[in-house]
Amino acid sequence: MDGTTPQNEAAPVQQSAVPQSERTDGNVIYIGKKSVMGYVLAVVTQFNHGEREVFIKARGKAISRAVDVAEIVRNRFLPDAKIADILTKTEELDSEDGTKSKVSAIEIKLCK
Amino acid sequence: MDGTTPQNEAAPVQQSAVPQSERTDGNVIYIGKKSVMGYVLAVVTQFNHGEREVFIKARGKAISRAVDVAEIVRNRFLPDAKIADILTKTEELDSEDGTKSKVSAIEIKLCK
Repeated sequence: MDGTTPQNEAAPVQQSAVPQSERTDGNVIYIGKKSVMGYVLAVVTQFNHGEREVFIKARGKAISRAVDVAEIVRNRFLPDAKIADILTKTEELDSEDGTKSKVSAIEIKLCK
Repeated sequence: MDGTTPQNEAAPVQQSAVPQSERTDGNVIYIGKKSVMGYVLAVVTQFNHGEREVFIKARGKAISRAVDVAEIVRNRFLPDAKIADILTKTEELDSEDGTKSKVSAIEIKLCK
């Protein structure tokens, strides 16, 4: 029993502390219509589970909420987290009536 | 009278080619509640008047509109314009009842 199950004594807690079920599509948080603090909690949870980078993604009117989430995480919960990069792009959506509409999107990369 | 008012003859045209009235606080466009295309026009006008950099600023829910403006300028009107930088911050506002509230803000730097 000596060398077979060493994770309890010698292995760093880092790896096993990240249960796969806690991951939201890797380390990406998609911002929707829920309350800002729910998303803030999701981001903080990712970092606490060992992630070094978390991506916050949003489209359309949720973009302002994505910025709120990043700012609250940085100012109130994780002062050592930094916004490493912000990208914007235009995505094309298929509407119900078959036409296409364009919507702006944002991706905020938070690093610790 | 020779050396006292030389600005009318020797000054470069560069300065006077940008009428002061067209400037929105330098080369900064503040996004409010008006239609997106009005702000797009304001940004394009700045570039057409010789500006090399235009800053798009917004707070709160207008942040998504600021991203819309930058994306539309870049995709539809000025394909050679680039988003050089995006900054976010948290600003403190004084409410009417004397309390303070925080609001997210964005600054998008467009370059040509």
